[in-house]
Amino acid sequence: MIRGVLFDLDDTLYNSSEFVEIARREAVKSMIDAGLDISFEEAMNILNKIIQDKGSNYGKHFDDLVKAISGRYDPKIITTGIITYHNVKVALLRPYPHTIKTLIDLKARGLKLGVITDGLTIKQWEKLIRMGIHPFFDEVITSEEFGLGKPHLEFFKYGLKRMNLKPEETIYVGDRVDKDIKPAKDLGMTTVRILKGKYKEMEDNNYSDYTINSIQELVKIVDELMNKTKI
Amino acid sequence: MIRGVLFDLDDTLYNSSEFVEIARREAVKSMIDAGLDISFEEAMNILNKIIQDKGSNYGKHFDDLVKAISGRYDPKIITTGIITYHNVKVALLRPYPHTIKTLIDLKARGLKLGVITDGLTIKQWEKLIRMGIHPFFDEVITSEEFGLGKPHLEFFKYGLKRMNLKPEETIYVGDRVDKDIKPAKDLGMTTVRILKGKYKEMEDNNYSDYTINSIQELVKIVDELMNKTKI
Repeated sequence: MIRGVLFDLDDTLYNSSEFVEIARREAVKSMIDAGLDISFEEAMNILNKIIQDKGSNYGKHFDDLVKAISGRYDPKIITTGIITYHNVKVALLRPYPHTIKTLIDLKARGLKLGVITDGLTIKQWEKLIRMGIHPFFDEVITSEEFGLGKPHLEFFKYGLKRMNLKPEETIYVGDRVDKDIKPAKDLGMTTVRILKGKYKEMEDNNYSDYTINSIQELVKIVDELMNKTKI
Repeated sequence: MIRGVLFDLDDTLYNSSEFVEIARREAVKSMIDAGLDISFEEAMNILNKIIQDKGSNYGKHFDDLVKAISGRYDPKIITTGIITYHNVKVALLRPYPHTIKTLIDLKARGLKLGVITDGLTIKQWEKLIRMGIHPFFDEVITSEEFGLGKPHLEFFKYGLKRMNLKPEETIYVGDRVDKDIKPAKDLGMTTVRILKGKYKEMEDNNYSDYTINSIQELVKIVDELMNKTKI
């Protein structure tokens, strides 16, 4: 009997890859406009290297970028980048098409809904609140809160516990095979892979029970599973 | 011979007291709307106590407020407060009337202009950049950069050095007698006190050479001083 759905956030409920890429590119352009003396392509190469080395939640990407290029701490240029990044974020952040309708349809079926996501708690909540979809979720579970992230099975077990759900009662929806679908499958959840974002070509190895192109396909899957367990 | 003007930022170039107060009140209202179970007045009392104890640049005012009221870390409510605070900030931040015209008039007289301010470098730059007035300033000098803030004379000396100005060549414009006007006067700058913000009733003790109600009065004072030294 399906009682709940656990969602990944980034690239599952909204277009994280595209949005972050645009925000970073616009931030770099604004820093060049503000006097950072480098070509756009070179600056993006350096920035991408910094992000690769330090991780996406490192707080000083632009500080390091400006330091690498100009050799000094330049708060005018750094702050210009931060403001542009933030403005683009606020402007572009919105759920994938049909997300809100799908969440309504799932709640109408009496399901518990949760988000389980790697990332900083306040940053992940900010996305949900700015998109206006946070009231759909009974729990929002972050790796920062738990102290360990995906693909650790302990993190998914903790998520199920927070939701008061057993794996066999739970559908898991995510975009990454390695960090979302495989661990959820290993724990015994029904796995739905959404083909979105930069990992949509990743080899599946039969870890996903279903693959969907749009979140709205989830409703039909849920109805099938709920009818099956009724019979 | 007057060659430059050093400005304080908060409550001198824009209405910091009012803006921060409105942003905090709206943030608290939004947290109550999001489920924080307390009256508005009680919440503001607790918040003001936290700000008094921890200082205005402490990064966790809302975390502590929510913890004090609900006894737990509640990221939904905290993030709601942060987003509202930020949205209000972006919406309300603008220079006092006549500020841009006055800065243009001062630049037209060949003067160097600088900002010297207590606070976090990126936060103070963010205000200047969002208001669009940062290009007027040859230097923006923050207490975070120097490691010591107002009213320490060393900080003002460092500011003068960054501007390559001598005290007797410099007009200082600020709102606080204790932290702006007195140290500037003690160093030998010409002091202009602007009667704005929550410290406008503060006892002057003759530390200010001039007092003004609006920044535009500065142009006349500069013209007088420049003519005087020419004769």
